Amino acid sequence: MADPRFFERAGPFALGALASAVGGELRNAAPEQVITDIGTLQTAGAGDLVFVNGKQYLEQLADTQAGACILRPEFAEHAPAGMGLILAADAHHAFAVIATLFYPDPTPEARIHPSAVVDATAEVGEGVQIDAGAVIGAGARIGAGCIIEPNAVIGRSVVLGERCRIGAGASVSHALIGRQVRIYPGCRIGQDGFGFASGPGGHLRIPQLGRVIIGDDVEVGANTTIDRGAAQDTVIGEGCRIDNLVQIGHNVTIGAGSVVVAQVGVSGSCHLGRGVVLGGQVGMADHVTVGDRAQVAAQSGLMRDVPAGAVVMGSPAKPIKDYWREVAALKKLVSRAP
Amino acid sequence: MADPRFFERAGPFALGALASAVGGELRNAAPEQVITDIGTLQTAGAGDLVFVNGKQYLEQLADTQAGACILRPEFAEHAPAGMGLILAADAHHAFAVIATLFYPDPTPEARIHPSAVVDATAEVGEGVQIDAGAVIGAGARIGAGCIIEPNAVIGRSVVLGERCRIGAGASVSHALIGRQVRIYPGCRIGQDGFGFASGPGGHLRIPQLGRVIIGDDVEVGANTTIDRGAAQDTVIGEGCRIDNLVQIGHNVTIGAGSVVVAQVGVSGSCHLGRGVVLGGQVGMADHVTVGDRAQVAAQSGLMRDVPAGAVVMGSPAKPIKDYWREVAALKKLVSRAP
Amino acid sequence: MADPRFFERAGPFALGALASAVGGELRNAAPEQVITDIGTLQTAGAGDLVFVNGKQYLEQLADTQAGACILRPEFAEHAPAGMGLILAADAHHAFAVIATLFYPDPTPEARIHPSAVVDATAEVGEGVQIDAGAVIGAGARIGAGCIIEPNAVIGRSVVLGERCRIGAGASVSHALIGRQVRIYPGCRIGQDGFGFASGPGGHLRIPQLGRVIIGDDVEVGANTTIDRGAAQDTVIGEGCRIDNLVQIGHNVTIGAGSVVVAQVGVSGSCHLGRGVVLGGQVGMADHVTVGDRAQVAAQSGLMRDVPAGAVVMGSPAKPIKDYWREVAALKKLVSRAP
Repeated sequence: MADPRFFERAGPFALGALASAVGGELRNAAPEQVITDIGTLQTAGAGDLVFVNGKQYLEQLADTQAGACILRPEFAEHAPAGMGLILAADAHHAFAVIATLFYPDPTPEARIHPSAVVDATAEVGEGVQIDAGAVIGAGARIGAGCIIEPNAVIGRSVVLGERCRIGAGASVSHALIGRQVRIYPGCRIGQDGFGFASGPGGHLRIPQLGRVIIGDDVEVGANTTIDRGAAQDTVIGEGCRIDNLVQIGHNVTIGAGSVVVAQVGVSGSCHLGRGVVLGGQVGMADHVTVGDRAQVAAQSGLMRDVPAGAVVMGSPAKPIKDYWREVAALKKLVSRAP
Repeated sequence: MADPRFFERAGPFALGALASAVGGELRNAAPEQVITDIGTLQTAGAGDLVFVNGKQYLEQLADTQAGACILRPEFAEHAPAGMGLILAADAHHAFAVIATLFYPDPTPEARIHPSAVVDATAEVGEGVQIDAGAVIGAGARIGAGCIIEPNAVIGRSVVLGERCRIGAGASVSHALIGRQVRIYPGCRIGQDGFGFASGPGGHLRIPQLGRVIIGDDVEVGANTTIDRGAAQDTVIGEGCRIDNLVQIGHNVTIGAGSVVVAQVGVSGSCHLGRGVVLGGQVGMADHVTVGDRAQVAAQSGLMRDVPAGAVVMGSPAKPIKDYWREVAALKKLVSRAP
Repeated sequence: MADPRFFERAGPFALGALASAVGGELRNAAPEQVITDIGTLQTAGAGDLVFVNGKQYLEQLADTQAGACILRPEFAEHAPAGMGLILAADAHHAFAVIATLFYPDPTPEARIHPSAVVDATAEVGEGVQIDAGAVIGAGARIGAGCIIEPNAVIGRSVVLGERCRIGAGASVSHALIGRQVRIYPGCRIGQDGFGFASGPGGHLRIPQLGRVIIGDDVEVGANTTIDRGAAQDTVIGEGCRIDNLVQIGHNVTIGAGSVVVAQVGVSGSCHLGRGVVLGGQVGMADHVTVGDRAQVAAQSGLMRDVPAGAVVMGSPAKPIKDYWREVAALKKLVSRAP
């Protein structure tokens, strides 16, 4: 399915092996049935495996030409006769695992391109790939298996854990980064925050003396900006997912596993708990705290703390039920007007 | 008028030739009147051509020192005596054509800078200019007359049609791009979308196996990000204009001729029809469809589909009349309060 | 306090010398008391100087182990016995001055990296540092003491005043830039604005013939985009502070000392007076004027002019008192509903 110019496929795999890989139950098929690729319900053929993640796809499931399907046990009866099934309670997760078997992350080629500039005092681990035009500063430590894409810039003394990937044209300074972190192209990490003392003589810059600390298994999207701390550090907890064009101000801390959707702006000294979700284009005033697992709807504006587990919406943000009640009340008010 | 350090001017041109070039009617002037430059009403001199695109400029027209003017026929009587006129129903378009005669796009210099890194398997067309530090990956095809600006990165197997221009520091991967496409500096095209399966064990990345397909004559603004598709492709139709700092998620399709203003966020799997206009900072939830020629006012938030031809505003978006009625009703409600 | 891998500390300094440097009054300490570093209230030790900028920190002040503190005279009585004090009316500003003594801006290393590409016709001033992979175009003038970070791109004929710093991967074209200007990584300055004449045949690009003019002592944040003018120039006045991911359209003028917070979008031909503050994610329609010292709250949307000194909020923006009255009225309306 995937364009072979851009994606290299592994496999084929036996359906039974795939079921075992995800701890799923095989049904309606021999374990040795050969699966050559993953596909979508509309386009898959007899050698392809697809997945169904919700009721709304059951109609398409009936019509698909796919040879096998991953789905929740309660959907099994909707599958066409003769289709091999892998039953998995979390079909989405199981599909992600199998898709990664077919399309694993590219393995780094252990080489430094001759046009890359690696400072003599930098430490480069085993099997690191450094692409054309990349620049590695003095004293930087690049963990084993990292990929540094073309024209990326790693500043002085930056530490990257094992198997990180730094995208084309990205820049990282004043940062300590964990393992298996992906920094997407054009991302800017570690520059000075927006800190100055304003007075009659103008805005006097305050030295920004913190760092950016990023935990293991974090992703930071394309052209996103994360400023280093002013006195403390800016900290992104392990497993976080940060989308494109997000702004993270100085001294911000984000707990493990949080998800920050595109174009969110998190002002300086905000604190997010663990497992927080910020929808796209959310804005936060400075020094605001969001509790664990709270969810903030897209475009909301946060001026006050949000308790753990809350679901809020609007600008200024309020509990989501209140938001929709206000929307309804305003609509009603207008309908009554002459 | 334009600073000659930055802009090279062609010409001069005879006024009659300019009128012919735009299919306009020459009045009050000899066809051989010499025009040396274009200008603005306030600063133009006797050799300059200006344009008037609306009533609000008629007062300035009376005072200008310009030697000639492009304007709609009904404005002709407001021009000073002795000024050469080109009458054109669409004066704005006519001015664009003439401005491009005086200031044509730079012609590529057919050369690859020695510091550029072009993979041996890449195909580079006739007359291509590849600037310092640019990197072209294996199997990429760069169409005739393209300009690849300094430090831009073109990934493996990417296809660029003829006469594209890729801005400084931009990166393009997993993409098939048409002719005469302009990708502005810092633009990020083709990186993985924001796709993962979340569960108790964290957020498991799902391989993103689609591409970015961009039609002919598209412009994509500075530092804008366009993620490649997850299973399908992300598709930008011909003639679209996308401004700076826009986010386009995976699987999005945008119809021909649509205009997306700065800082808009289009979530994954949204579909825009042809000739859609999204104002600045608009946000769209995922899987939302906007019909042909619909217009969405700046800062609106779309959570539901928008029919073809509709004009909507607000967050959540509603028909623009309803939006302004709500604004008025709320103002009135407050004015009544004690 | 600051990680020595990333920050080089100067000093130590005598407390009396520091008090003199900021015009503050020394109290409770000998002028020769040695200060080795600056710190925060929570982490400082006996050799460290801290500052207190508001009542809310007086409790922490009582518990700090810091050897000395800068604070306003009226807070002096709250300091622990034996702590050296510098009394300064503007403690924040004084701390900024002293912090810069301990952590001065890095001095450029006068050298051009061998992998940088500097056109033979560019003029490079005394003591300029040009890092790996940077590209300097024909006829560009780089003022004395500038630092051009890795892979930054300076276009043809661009002028940089003395002691500018251009961040990693940034690009600057069609621009005249003053002294001591900081352009952060990934910033895009001088590309074409979003200008075209739309008609039945599509969107015809209009040549963008202006420049970007930036005054002395301006900062422009990471991945921010500033388009050059269409016919006039885009102008950023001296002393402005522009944060990350901001969009500035063509022909915009911004008066001296204005502050533009992250993710703001300023549409084409807007004019901001002197000392204006735009909060994060503010959006402005085109041709809107904001008067001197006006303040616009975060996420506001400006469709009309804002008078000098006004404080506005909301989308559409209104006087901030009216905004909060509307918020309260709407809440009350809902609470009354059945």
